[in-house]
Amino acid sequence: MSNDSTIPNTARLLISCPDQKGIVAVLSNFIFEHGGNIIQSDQHSTDYQNGQFFMRLDFSLENFDLSPEEFKTSFQAIADRFHMYWQINYTSNAKRIGFFVSKEFHCLLDLLWRWKSGEICMEVPFIISNHPDAEKIAKDFDIDFYHFPVTKDNKAEQEEKILELIKGKADFLVLARYMQILSGKFIDEYRNKIVNIHHSFLPAFAGAKPYQQAQERGVKIIGATAHYATEDLDQGPIIEQDIIRVSHKDSLAELQQKGRDIERTVLARAIKWQVEDRIIVYKNKTIVFV
Amino acid sequence: MSNDSTIPNTARLLISCPDQKGIVAVLSNFIFEHGGNIIQSDQHSTDYQNGQFFMRLDFSLENFDLSPEEFKTSFQAIADRFHMYWQINYTSNAKRIGFFVSKEFHCLLDLLWRWKSGEICMEVPFIISNHPDAEKIAKDFDIDFYHFPVTKDNKAEQEEKILELIKGKADFLVLARYMQILSGKFIDEYRNKIVNIHHSFLPAFAGAKPYQQAQERGVKIIGATAHYATEDLDQGPIIEQDIIRVSHKDSLAELQQKGRDIERTVLARAIKWQVEDRIIVYKNKTIVFV
Amino acid sequence: MSNDSTIPNTARLLISCPDQKGIVAVLSNFIFEHGGNIIQSDQHSTDYQNGQFFMRLDFSLENFDLSPEEFKTSFQAIADRFHMYWQINYTSNAKRIGFFVSKEFHCLLDLLWRWKSGEICMEVPFIISNHPDAEKIAKDFDIDFYHFPVTKDNKAEQEEKILELIKGKADFLVLARYMQILSGKFIDEYRNKIVNIHHSFLPAFAGAKPYQQAQERGVKIIGATAHYATEDLDQGPIIEQDIIRVSHKDSLAELQQKGRDIERTVLARAIKWQVEDRIIVYKNKTIVFV
Amino acid sequence: MSNDSTIPNTARLLISCPDQKGIVAVLSNFIFEHGGNIIQSDQHSTDYQNGQFFMRLDFSLENFDLSPEEFKTSFQAIADRFHMYWQINYTSNAKRIGFFVSKEFHCLLDLLWRWKSGEICMEVPFIISNHPDAEKIAKDFDIDFYHFPVTKDNKAEQEEKILELIKGKADFLVLARYMQILSGKFIDEYRNKIVNIHHSFLPAFAGAKPYQQAQERGVKIIGATAHYATEDLDQGPIIEQDIIRVSHKDSLAELQQKGRDIERTVLARAIKWQVEDRIIVYKNKTIVFV
Repeated sequence: MSNDSTIPNTARLLISCPDQKGIVAVLSNFIFEHGGNIIQSDQHSTDYQNGQFFMRLDFSLENFDLSPEEFKTSFQAIADRFHMYWQINYTSNAKRIGFFVSKEFHCLLDLLWRWKSGEICMEVPFIISNHPDAEKIAKDFDIDFYHFPVTKDNKAEQEEKILELIKGKADFLVLARYMQILSGKFIDEYRNKIVNIHHSFLPAFAGAKPYQQAQERGVKIIGATAHYATEDLDQGPIIEQDIIRVSHKDSLAELQQKGRDIERTVLARAIKWQVEDRIIVYKNKTIVFV
Repeated sequence: MSNDSTIPNTARLLISCPDQKGIVAVLSNFIFEHGGNIIQSDQHSTDYQNGQFFMRLDFSLENFDLSPEEFKTSFQAIADRFHMYWQINYTSNAKRIGFFVSKEFHCLLDLLWRWKSGEICMEVPFIISNHPDAEKIAKDFDIDFYHFPVTKDNKAEQEEKILELIKGKADFLVLARYMQILSGKFIDEYRNKIVNIHHSFLPAFAGAKPYQQAQERGVKIIGATAHYATEDLDQGPIIEQDIIRVSHKDSLAELQQKGRDIERTVLARAIKWQVEDRIIVYKNKTIVFV
Repeated sequence: MSNDSTIPNTARLLISCPDQKGIVAVLSNFIFEHGGNIIQSDQHSTDYQNGQFFMRLDFSLENFDLSPEEFKTSFQAIADRFHMYWQINYTSNAKRIGFFVSKEFHCLLDLLWRWKSGEICMEVPFIISNHPDAEKIAKDFDIDFYHFPVTKDNKAEQEEKILELIKGKADFLVLARYMQILSGKFIDEYRNKIVNIHHSFLPAFAGAKPYQQAQERGVKIIGATAHYATEDLDQGPIIEQDIIRVSHKDSLAELQQKGRDIERTVLARAIKWQVEDRIIVYKNKTIVFV
Repeated sequence: MSNDSTIPNTARLLISCPDQKGIVAVLSNFIFEHGGNIIQSDQHSTDYQNGQFFMRLDFSLENFDLSPEEFKTSFQAIADRFHMYWQINYTSNAKRIGFFVSKEFHCLLDLLWRWKSGEICMEVPFIISNHPDAEKIAKDFDIDFYHFPVTKDNKAEQEEKILELIKGKADFLVLARYMQILSGKFIDEYRNKIVNIHHSFLPAFAGAKPYQQAQERGVKIIGATAHYATEDLDQGPIIEQDIIRVSHKDSLAELQQKGRDIERTVLARAIKWQVEDRIIVYKNKTIVFV
């Protein structure tokens, strides 16, 4: 839920642990005892027995009596008891999202607009590209721009420089049509923190030139997929997908045009969910609380 | 969540009350203390302040120590404290859904199929119609059939007889293309317990002949709406809607054909949610926990 | 276009040939000179130069002065001149569609309903199954039923018997969830005349257990694909596809339930287009005139 | 069909007339005799008898021997014979589309992007607004901007000035979220040449504040409608509509955000069809050849 009146600071707690009785009670008691008011909660268990428990709790901090530091200490006892993976995020700390692009800017521009119109609450510390073309956009939106041309020979080296440059500057990275494959080493540094948009309905048409593959196969629907980047190309956990109908009348150029609309919509949803802490990754799949 | 392995008996608790701190804690403690395991929970509040609190709790009864009777007594104390509207339903008690139809059977047949294939868990105590045509279907599915012809003159009287006949036999009624308007008196007896399918995207094209209205207006999309019947025709709380694209090529007959697919899909979803206790009505709107 | 008033007999001419100037003029002159009135025409060329020309002409036979036999002779001269692949079909001759099923009947039943409600105009000469279960349905709809149990050992033999049995009885075959792979020999006899429904969004999840594959991959959308059967499993020309959203909440059983709705809708559209002569196959793709 | 290789100049002929035999033959002969090659043709008749005939012909001008002036004269004889409403447009003459906006720019920006990326082929002679805010955008895209503040008192006068200013400068006008109602006089000057985007699924929620109306009614789907502006507010011929799902979780602000995505997509499709000469208006409805 969001709201049109003044929105208070809230915290979002994401939890994943082996299921057992009483977890919800313990969590909600903890928040209640410290003065928090649960605004929205969503819980999901994978199975009735021996399943995995997932929960997202969105609670108001208005009278909450724990500072972020205190929360960490106090909550860790509960987390240990239930073997929880957990994270807490505060709406007062906007996520910092760094962008990577190449030569197509529909996804980038769409996200920057949504940012400026207040639809997606984030900070944009930088735009990085293997081409100089995005510099003007970065300037228009007052964002730092870095150009890292990539060749076969300098790829590893450039990745090192990028990692060095962005260190500590971004919570998440978005590959908004970045036409370079990141190394396992790079991905390891940002595990489940790099969102990629692939211009097909994965797992169909993974790899290069998906629209051409789609046209050759004669599909009646094309799609786009937002997923976390992993070492295996286009195999990472899927966050969101959507589709659009096509027909024999559509040329390759028209497939690409139609596809752009889906790409930017799908990526925008994924990023919105990311900044609103709605996603838990578990075993190469995502739980998305929407 | 449903599950492919053996599913235990569960109970579903639906709650609506003024929002305040601690409700989730109190509810989850209560269930935990009595040995229940929360399988899925969904909570929604309409506002950060002075809002309304809604929750659906699905919990396993495997080691739950309260009988339905005991639950009522024990839980009422909590309900009183928070001024709750609440209801609990047990999966072991399949909902009894009575059907009303006229001369078009696509919605009825679709639901009966889903019932027989195990997709929708319900009992079907009767089919009532103002025409004799559905009798064969009722017989094929081994359901009691009652024919109540309706004229202007005998309408009130027939309604009385129907009310008498079905008394205590059904938890919910479905108007599966029943072409009669029920009186306020009838509806009063089944407040928020009569699901109607209207063959348009409400509030567009309320009333009679919606496909003809749609064709005359030249819309590019038609729809269907499942809603609770109220005294005001086609004005009741909307449960579900869906649409399908049409074009200038579609004749009235084709609009009707395309519409039938939407009608049955939308009604099936509404009924599935109804029997799974996913719907709360509040101020002429629905909260649907899916 | 279809129409609500009395519909006259019409003929549908489907044409595919190398593109060149004047084809439309020659075709429309021919029909006009013989007294036909073009009710709907659709034309598509694949390229501005050296492309392939495709056309569907739907014309009224009310004052048409050529019998089907005469048409063949007269038209062949034009066809030869332009190197046309062509076929003509008369609405007065309903297509004969033979069904193959195994143990799931949602697709079969859905099509039989649409047939009975007048939505799809066809004849159903037989239902063939490798299991006995569909016999009751066949009986209810007054259709001949044949049971051909298939094992590894008798497969070739059974196919022979089926081919023998159905010889000359069907214009098209529909594999309405028939869980047997037909041999190349069988397919060769019904080239582009066997419509299969695959329960995934091809080319994703070809082969066995597509819903399980989908769940394991964690996709957010599932689909179904109607295509012509070819020797290469799930590789034939795609006729129609559609999708439905799913989430982490959906168990395998729920994926299958949701999928069934898509399967039957997609197959119904494909069969409707088939009986209305809207499909041309060209180079493993389809041109569908809708 | 569009194409990836070099696209030749083509002409698009739109025709509407009472249906009778031989029209297609006459049209296609005429084009053939003058050296044109029909690339795509679409024809539709409203009824089998006494219907209205509609056709779109897209033909190559490569060896066409009539200049636009000559075409007018030659073709008029055919048009007179069949009582045709007709128009011809040449792809070499890009449509000139003038924009009207107020304070929300998602539709405007989206169209300008599509223009700049080559997706929509048009010229943009001006942006007019009743507020000064769009000036920066106009400047960024190098478009003339005119600010016409409107009050109750000066409205008629301002309209006069606008009509005077834009005279002869635009083929079509787009109300891209222009929050002023145009007078009948203004509309009369641009009959079926003003495309408006209404932020609801018309005819539902016509008039002011459609998202608020939608939220109050509790619909599960919201939509947007592109239509030609007429004297009757939100009653003009519908060009395109699309929808997006919403739920009880969506606040008014979120409805508006979701709606913006639909508004811009729907308007973009309508404008693309407009510049590609795909729309015929007939009796307050549209025939859209796609």
